[in-house]
Amino acid sequence: MRDVAIVGAGMIPFGELFDQGIKDMVARAFDATLSSVDKGMRPDEIGAAWFSEVQSVDGFPAGLLADACGLGDIPVTRVENACASGNDALRNALYAVGGGYVDVALVLGTDKVRDTSASSTFWDWMGTNRDSAWDLPLGLISPASFALHVARYMHEFGATREHLAMVAVKNHHNGATNPYAHLRYEVTMEQVLAAPMVVEPFGLLDCVPQSDGAAAVLIAGRDVVDRYTDRPVWVRGVGTGMDRVLHAEKADLSRFPATAKAAKQAFAMAGIGPERIDVAEVHDCFTGVEMMTYEELGFCGRGEAPRLLERGETSIGGRLPVNPSGGLKSKGHPPGATGLAQCTELFEQLRGEAVNQVDGARWALAHNVGGPTAVAAVTVLAGPDA
Amino acid sequence: MRDVAIVGAGMIPFGELFDQGIKDMVARAFDATLSSVDKGMRPDEIGAAWFSEVQSVDGFPAGLLADACGLGDIPVTRVENACASGNDALRNALYAVGGGYVDVALVLGTDKVRDTSASSTFWDWMGTNRDSAWDLPLGLISPASFALHVARYMHEFGATREHLAMVAVKNHHNGATNPYAHLRYEVTMEQVLAAPMVVEPFGLLDCVPQSDGAAAVLIAGRDVVDRYTDRPVWVRGVGTGMDRVLHAEKADLSRFPATAKAAKQAFAMAGIGPERIDVAEVHDCFTGVEMMTYEELGFCGRGEAPRLLERGETSIGGRLPVNPSGGLKSKGHPPGATGLAQCTELFEQLRGEAVNQVDGARWALAHNVGGPTAVAAVTVLAGPDA
Repeated sequence: MRDVAIVGAGMIPFGELFDQGIKDMVARAFDATLSSVDKGMRPDEIGAAWFSEVQSVDGFPAGLLADACGLGDIPVTRVENACASGNDALRNALYAVGGGYVDVALVLGTDKVRDTSASSTFWDWMGTNRDSAWDLPLGLISPASFALHVARYMHEFGATREHLAMVAVKNHHNGATNPYAHLRYEVTMEQVLAAPMVVEPFGLLDCVPQSDGAAAVLIAGRDVVDRYTDRPVWVRGVGTGMDRVLHAEKADLSRFPATAKAAKQAFAMAGIGPERIDVAEVHDCFTGVEMMTYEELGFCGRGEAPRLLERGETSIGGRLPVNPSGGLKSKGHPPGATGLAQCTELFEQLRGEAVNQVDGARWALAHNVGGPTAVAAVTVLAGPDA
Repeated sequence: MRDVAIVGAGMIPFGELFDQGIKDMVARAFDATLSSVDKGMRPDEIGAAWFSEVQSVDGFPAGLLADACGLGDIPVTRVENACASGNDALRNALYAVGGGYVDVALVLGTDKVRDTSASSTFWDWMGTNRDSAWDLPLGLISPASFALHVARYMHEFGATREHLAMVAVKNHHNGATNPYAHLRYEVTMEQVLAAPMVVEPFGLLDCVPQSDGAAAVLIAGRDVVDRYTDRPVWVRGVGTGMDRVLHAEKADLSRFPATAKAAKQAFAMAGIGPERIDVAEVHDCFTGVEMMTYEELGFCGRGEAPRLLERGETSIGGRLPVNPSGGLKSKGHPPGATGLAQCTELFEQLRGEAVNQVDGARWALAHNVGGPTAVAAVTVLAGPDA
């Protein structure tokens, strides 16, 4: 196997994109990504593509990607792994490039959460990402599912709604200056705590928006990286972890075992530990999920996550800034695109080009959890100077 | 990269399996596959899994596979590429194993076509596998889509409904003795021609049944193959090709460009040409599709496919037997499982263990086309004696 680097990354602004179909969004993200390659790249230099789309609303996913991007002469594979699809698609593409089967691969993700197909509903979508026979009829869709986890964590460790609100305030602060973010405004602690309750302990401002969007990366094998850039961002580790689908079978709701497993794999492959990470994009679909994830990723010990927030350690300027892009919370969360938008942010961070730059960032981590909490994917990246 | 072999393969009998959910089918196919490994294999020797499921009816696909098979400690990725999902999932797994990232991988496929989720219909399913905005409202679901292709081919080359019927007669003859086949009966030329018309030129007996089922293979890297078997079946070539999704944009309806592209990739990787293939499992969702595919795979020249059928060259005992398992036509077609059921049949063929054994088979080919005709996947296999 050989080293693999991201040589280009791009996205379109996330939002309620009622004027764009999947093919429009995909084509624009592809153009942005190609344009980001320092020394340029022709589409015909791409040897294979992976498409991360959780829900097909405009039709046959892999074919639509090929058509929209003019990539009909290469293999296109759709990877679906709930909200972890983006980073898991990158993992699959890495195997092909690292194994020497393909020199350059496109990994592009998208979803339209604000449009569902004519005959299906958001409830149908939810059914495909949990156990549809048992948990779906109980109403255990995403907010309720994650609320069970976060409520249990709060009970165990004395975390409060104020701790959750700190995540929202931090991430909205970051996203307010990110031109690609869906919700480009700040929120105050008071606003978060006073927002209408969605499901205890999540008020409206603890919840991710429903967003449309697309994002992509181009990866290349070490032998050909120099053709495209002198400032590659290396993909040092990938990991995908699983947990039980049924909530009744989860051993401890105060944990996210899938995240811990994915992180363990990715760190082992990278040959580093979490103490080396300088900046991270973490799955904050609901505020408390980011908080709990600090622990599963090894950023702090068990029960210490609320202290990290109190001390501002995960704010920009802190020890380990998390979600400088605004995170899912402010930037938005089209599930198939999310992991690749995280990698786009970290590509810029590790090259010193980000809007909310973390000074001297050399190692970075992207993380998703989904299928509620039954799957997680982690990617560890190293900058040109690492 | 290193060589990769299939060391185990298995499936459950296809049919109308109303008594089994996805988790039941998946667990049984996994057991059958593990049991097929000559020297045995423990589940914890599997390093990663790929899950080929086209439509999620019971919920989060990757998580359900992990739960049903007790594989919660390894990464599971769902690959969806319409009817080409099975062989494309195998291609993705091959990259991971061949690249040295994983020693042993499970590739398991399933679908329940006879059950759709409570809130969605078969029509919804069809929408996810074509262009849902343009072709779906026109009624261009699978039978109509393939009928356009086959009708055009018949017009160009003077093929008749009798040629199509020869495919049905041949494949039902083979499937009648296959204990895993859904439709285990013979049909006569007269019955096929007299069957009720579905869509010109396809009568009912030109069409695949709607089947539930599951199938799987276990692949291993060369370094570890000996642990599992002395009779491995080598995966020598993989390929995935694309074509336009919209029927209005297909350049020539008498062709399947996706199949030609996939075959070209797989043969190039294998370092052989189609003349070396001794037995093939070809996507015969509709009889005429098998006929046309002979040409796209290079089994004969342009316009010569009807002659192959007239001369019995693709019957068992002929020059190049196609679909000795009964094919999709008789064995059944749960889309996510189909490619892996083909590989299961060919694993047995190349080891001399098949029910309808092709004498001396050393090289084999599996083929799928789907998303109607916008994607195809081809796998080239070599037996222990090749």
